[in-house]
Amino acid sequence: MWEFYMPTDVFFGEKILEKKGSIIDILGKRALVVTGKSSSKKNGSLDDLRKLLNETGISYEIFDEVEENPSFDNVMKAVERYRNDSFDFVVGLGGGSPMDFAKAVAVLLKEKDLSVEDLYDREKVKHWLPVVEIPTTAGTGSEVTPYSILTDPEGNKRGCTLMFPVYAFLDPGYTYFMSDKLALSTGVDALSHAVEGFLSRKSTPPSDALAIEAMKIIHRNLPKAIEGNREARKKMFVASCLAGMVIAQTGTTLAHALGYPLTVEKGIKHGKATGMVLPFVMEVMKEEIPEKVTTVNHIFGGSLLRFLKELGLYEKVTVSSEELEKWVEKGSKAKHLTNTPGTFTPEKIRNIYREALGV
Amino acid sequence: MWEFYMPTDVFFGEKILEKKGSIIDILGKRALVVTGKSSSKKNGSLDDLRKLLNETGISYEIFDEVEENPSFDNVMKAVERYRNDSFDFVVGLGGGSPMDFAKAVAVLLKEKDLSVEDLYDREKVKHWLPVVEIPTTAGTGSEVTPYSILTDPEGNKRGCTLMFPVYAFLDPGYTYFMSDKLALSTGVDALSHAVEGFLSRKSTPPSDALAIEAMKIIHRNLPKAIEGNREARKKMFVASCLAGMVIAQTGTTLAHALGYPLTVEKGIKHGKATGMVLPFVMEVMKEEIPEKVTTVNHIFGGSLLRFLKELGLYEKVTVSSEELEKWVEKGSKAKHLTNTPGTFTPEKIRNIYREALGV
Repeated sequence: MWEFYMPTDVFFGEKILEKKGSIIDILGKRALVVTGKSSSKKNGSLDDLRKLLNETGISYEIFDEVEENPSFDNVMKAVERYRNDSFDFVVGLGGGSPMDFAKAVAVLLKEKDLSVEDLYDREKVKHWLPVVEIPTTAGTGSEVTPYSILTDPEGNKRGCTLMFPVYAFLDPGYTYFMSDKLALSTGVDALSHAVEGFLSRKSTPPSDALAIEAMKIIHRNLPKAIEGNREARKKMFVASCLAGMVIAQTGTTLAHALGYPLTVEKGIKHGKATGMVLPFVMEVMKEEIPEKVTTVNHIFGGSLLRFLKELGLYEKVTVSSEELEKWVEKGSKAKHLTNTPGTFTPEKIRNIYREALGV
Repeated sequence: MWEFYMPTDVFFGEKILEKKGSIIDILGKRALVVTGKSSSKKNGSLDDLRKLLNETGISYEIFDEVEENPSFDNVMKAVERYRNDSFDFVVGLGGGSPMDFAKAVAVLLKEKDLSVEDLYDREKVKHWLPVVEIPTTAGTGSEVTPYSILTDPEGNKRGCTLMFPVYAFLDPGYTYFMSDKLALSTGVDALSHAVEGFLSRKSTPPSDALAIEAMKIIHRNLPKAIEGNREARKKMFVASCLAGMVIAQTGTTLAHALGYPLTVEKGIKHGKATGMVLPFVMEVMKEEIPEKVTTVNHIFGGSLLRFLKELGLYEKVTVSSEELEKWVEKGSKAKHLTNTPGTFTPEKIRNIYREALGV
């Protein structure tokens, strides 16, 4: 049995806000825009959005304090500031952090009695403001998923399933402003989504179709995208969107779960952290789905690990044995295990970290 | 620039109505079911649907007089019979004919002042009842498109764009009841959707991803599906759904337009009619997109024409020169030309018919 559901209306192209953005008019007359401190100012996307909102007669507030890997506190800061205002919809502008943030805020501004913790209880999340997403990095795919990943007060990254965005506007021009380093970490995030979705126990025929195409595009374009090639950046933006549609169906796998502590505790960018462990997670998945793992390696020129090494993804990470054991324990309990083919014993998880981190 | 929009929630699997059907409860308490005279009774789908409606406490009427290639009059017959009733949603059950019919009726039961002709005016079609589609043939893909193809009083098949179905339920078990002949004509319809969508000027990265996968599945499974192999029938049902998602983005091309008169005037099944002309339409498309045409032929084992010939698709059709000239003229004016790569002069269209029909 499978389901396919991806109701977001996606628009992709240069100057897409100018060409198609006025459609948001249907959502109402007052918007809250959430974004990070600086990048949406540098890449021109905030100016484009302001222009659109002004021209369509939509009044707005801008919350530009979204942190990278936003915390519960960060979300509540916005919610408390704007709870007495009356917005019709929320716009997430930037990378995965503001887009995930937008979804959380869209619930909490509508359901005024809920806390951030309540977002993890599907029974409590019934109503929300419509969400519009404008990604500026080619990685997260959050513009076409219902997921929001937030960092709880204990420092754990935790994903919840909220709502699909109503509209997503992808202007590849914004991605030309990413540093090469950011293009790498976000590009590898998209790669992980495509690969993990393809290998997930929840994979479906439509998600596989999208995943295969995304992997092929990433194989051909990521090496050039991290050198700043614009055409390759544009293609990576397509691929990250397709890969987002994939995980909207399948969720992610243990590779994501194992990457989270590397981000929270070692400051390794999310996409990079996931990508580093992914080939070793795949080795264990082989037990259950050898053919699909072979397909992935084949698409990436014979070996995904070699492809990622050649991108310069790997670095040695200093990890104490206490840290390692804590991560192994956390990984052994991850809810992602349900969707992940293969049997992941603590020993195997320890080996995955050792091989990925060179410890 | 491209857009991807496919908001239908699709459920696929054996006994899917029993497992997931109760979700339709959200649409209301009274349904109009539209279906054909006999096949939904033979394949068990009408019984399954009745059981679902009874168990969820939804009252319903059944209109089981949908014709193959339904006419405007056929639509109005249902509309007039039920205009004074008060339905919450419409269920289309069967092949493309009842599913397309359901969409038309869903508008005309809501907008009580409109005529069938008004469905072709996008400005007039503003409101409709929600539509649920339950396909029982693996071809049309209508369960995931907003299109409705009806035959006008002059005998022209004309497509209009109405609404996406809210839910689609695909139980492959129903397709096991198709005759081998029906499996062929509907399977070739799905094939044409995948190929035409891939070659259309309106093709997009997500639609191409879905089209490539659909073509691969069809190449591997259609020959076995027309011999009654159940696993192959199931795979064809997946492919027809993917191909429907493709044309929901791209529309069809001149191959569909050229096939229509063969169906209306010569009684050749829709899928078969389109498939017969498709390889020759592709030859002209080569002028503009040689690489994509090569990709299609490659997927079908080197030659789409040979693949279709080996399926036994072609038959000699008796056509008078008056008929041929009328079709050439109609084809030369088809709105599908906008999306169709290549320059289609009347002479080229005449040749396409001659080669396809052996005249």
